[in-house]
Amino acid sequence: MYMGGLIVKKRNGDALTKEEIEFMINGYVKGEIPDYQMAAMMMAIYFMGMNDEETVCLTTAMAHSGDMLDLSAINGIKVDKHSTGGVGDKTSLVLGPMVASLGVPIAKMSGRGLGHTGGTIDKLESIKGFHTSLTTEQFIENVNRVKLAIMGQTADIAPADKKLYALRDVTATVDNMSLIASSIMSKKLAAGADAIVLDVKTGSGAFMKKEKDSRLLAKEMVKIGNSAGRKTVAVISDMDQPLGYAVGNAIEVREAIETLNGRGPADLEELCVTLGTQMLLCAGKAATEAEAEEMLKETIQNGAALKKFAEFVSAQGGDTDCIYHPEKLPQASIVKEVAALETGYIQKIFCEEIGVASLLLGGGRRKKEDEIDLSVGIMLRKKVGNFVNQGDSIATIYGNDPEKIKDAYNRIEDAYFYSQTAVKKKKFIKGIIKE
Amino acid sequence: MYMGGLIVKKRNGDALTKEEIEFMINGYVKGEIPDYQMAAMMMAIYFMGMNDEETVCLTTAMAHSGDMLDLSAINGIKVDKHSTGGVGDKTSLVLGPMVASLGVPIAKMSGRGLGHTGGTIDKLESIKGFHTSLTTEQFIENVNRVKLAIMGQTADIAPADKKLYALRDVTATVDNMSLIASSIMSKKLAAGADAIVLDVKTGSGAFMKKEKDSRLLAKEMVKIGNSAGRKTVAVISDMDQPLGYAVGNAIEVREAIETLNGRGPADLEELCVTLGTQMLLCAGKAATEAEAEEMLKETIQNGAALKKFAEFVSAQGGDTDCIYHPEKLPQASIVKEVAALETGYIQKIFCEEIGVASLLLGGGRRKKEDEIDLSVGIMLRKKVGNFVNQGDSIATIYGNDPEKIKDAYNRIEDAYFYSQTAVKKKKFIKGIIKE
Repeated sequence: MYMGGLIVKKRNGDALTKEEIEFMINGYVKGEIPDYQMAAMMMAIYFMGMNDEETVCLTTAMAHSGDMLDLSAINGIKVDKHSTGGVGDKTSLVLGPMVASLGVPIAKMSGRGLGHTGGTIDKLESIKGFHTSLTTEQFIENVNRVKLAIMGQTADIAPADKKLYALRDVTATVDNMSLIASSIMSKKLAAGADAIVLDVKTGSGAFMKKEKDSRLLAKEMVKIGNSAGRKTVAVISDMDQPLGYAVGNAIEVREAIETLNGRGPADLEELCVTLGTQMLLCAGKAATEAEAEEMLKETIQNGAALKKFAEFVSAQGGDTDCIYHPEKLPQASIVKEVAALETGYIQKIFCEEIGVASLLLGGGRRKKEDEIDLSVGIMLRKKVGNFVNQGDSIATIYGNDPEKIKDAYNRIEDAYFYSQTAVKKKKFIKGIIKE
Repeated sequence: MYMGGLIVKKRNGDALTKEEIEFMINGYVKGEIPDYQMAAMMMAIYFMGMNDEETVCLTTAMAHSGDMLDLSAINGIKVDKHSTGGVGDKTSLVLGPMVASLGVPIAKMSGRGLGHTGGTIDKLESIKGFHTSLTTEQFIENVNRVKLAIMGQTADIAPADKKLYALRDVTATVDNMSLIASSIMSKKLAAGADAIVLDVKTGSGAFMKKEKDSRLLAKEMVKIGNSAGRKTVAVISDMDQPLGYAVGNAIEVREAIETLNGRGPADLEELCVTLGTQMLLCAGKAATEAEAEEMLKETIQNGAALKKFAEFVSAQGGDTDCIYHPEKLPQASIVKEVAALETGYIQKIFCEEIGVASLLLGGGRRKKEDEIDLSVGIMLRKKVGNFVNQGDSIATIYGNDPEKIKDAYNRIEDAYFYSQTAVKKKKFIKGIIKE
């Protein structure tokens, strides 16, 4: 078996065997197969595709290229949640406590953000004292006791995917459904959960702009997860405008706390209930969707989710005072309203511009080494369908540097599009894929 | 402009501009564009192809990536000949003197062989004293005086092609007509001739096995050459069996001398006259094909071509005694006849096996560093269409090592296929492509 022959095979449209895919992935991780051969293979896959069996084999081979987390010391059915990413996505901060408060163990390994906004860990670090440097023992102990813990990605999770993704990124071979699905799912399989609920975003602010593509990606990932013996469900949700109103770090934690207090944005709450429902069903904690929804809403109404959030934060060194007094979270020094350029209905909000505005304020990283300013962010005042008069505030900027605020202001202005006729609200949850 | 964007463009089926192709080739040669991006680009080109304009731009960019030979100091219209390669191909040794004796200047830069048999320079080195280490001044002076000179490839000719071909070879991206054509033609354009006559082989012993593909390649190369301002013509000739009877080095020189004496194999003579006719037309030395053919045949009959060969050899230090007494060329110590396994008509002779037999005897190089045994070789006794009785000699092996002769014997036996019914002779010259 040699890589040149495998490239020819794929280039000619033939399917690779399990052994061939393992040979390729193992050889690549060991450095025996050079980047240039893998790049040619990725482009051949881009054109010729991979069948379901190949995709599952690739995912499994990548998952096994590094550590496979063993979460068997955690009691109960462990359900993981993964989002394909979007602007203002603070779902984990709300969903985790809701589901954990119902007894489902959530053992989350999370990375830091790169790009528009910080990752879940960055956001949580705006809570004084909160840290994720747990040993695996502490992590497991926390999950067993609190039912919710987050640790930084210390383990060597799917190094093949890391290496391959970096290569695909610079060789125009990212956009292939099988490759995208296997990249995401290899990390999920290695992370050790029994069941996986996927939050697949769709729309201008999502990795997949078209609903059709998001649906295909969701189906592909669900197929891989189930084939690999992990119960997997995907929820497709709208990302044609930011999720909720807050975009940043501390500001998103504040919105999450508001949501746990029952005063959150409707879309965020709807998403948390929908994803949570699937998690409860996977974990066998509810028999029907209606029952699960009821249970989840109850965790907000009775304060159990908020209490769980505080318990979780406390278990990882965080100051729970911020949770009951969110105004104590980091605050920016300058507040600036963004005025509507026109009178009319908000037709669309270009997510990427809002994300970049947050990045420009200092809320995200351009490079891995960048420090994040946790206090800055944007609070949208108007979302799609709202009517505004020219000059009304459409968003509030929280920043610390007048120059950066100016840049962010322009971006936000550019992000909003107006219509003279009323804009119909679109369905937020687009579908649930179970097989 | 950045390489990732260019890969996307080609991957999506769009044509690259001249500037983009130059950016890519220059960046690649400088090492600014890594192999892995180029490998992805090559695979994208494999699938999406290149249009005529792109192919010409790629060829020109590769030609200009190193030295562009300036042959302007040579008087007259300089015509270059290039063969896509085959077994027993001693065409240059006969054609060069024929055409040069009619006053057309031939300034040939040639490489050493790798694989089955030696290259033209290796073959010529079986003549005692012959060398190709000429300075550019001596080379030009020789061409002006003798009308024929060969020098080793000292200049930095099309380094982009060299680097790119090595990459394509290991990334399954060789088999694309535009890439093959641009690889060959970039070297020809850099080599500085005013006109180019291409000898495109077709058949089992050729790079292009199918006549249809050979024709496409020929058309592509002719288009490139003419677009780049060099009059270019391609002759498509059969390589379903070795050319002539001799395969080796000194043995091929002997057959070339026989041909210059008017006693050569019909196929070799036909090819030399056909190619020579196109060279004379390109050089403006003849007005019609019939006139050119007449002139070329005359050079054999009146001994002018043989005399020119001796003059050329002498000018490069070679002992002309060998030319008039070819038995003085290196001779192997062992002669072994290969017996026909069956009685019947020779149906086909698998070129590659004959080539490998010569290589096994020591007549070719596996690696660049290998020394060639110039004395060894094979003289075919029977070719396609001939009738043999079982046990008749089909070929004579000239070798120096009994073990190697045994291996070569088996290869030659395997190369011959027999038929019980008469085998119809196929047309040798398949066509001439002028545009």
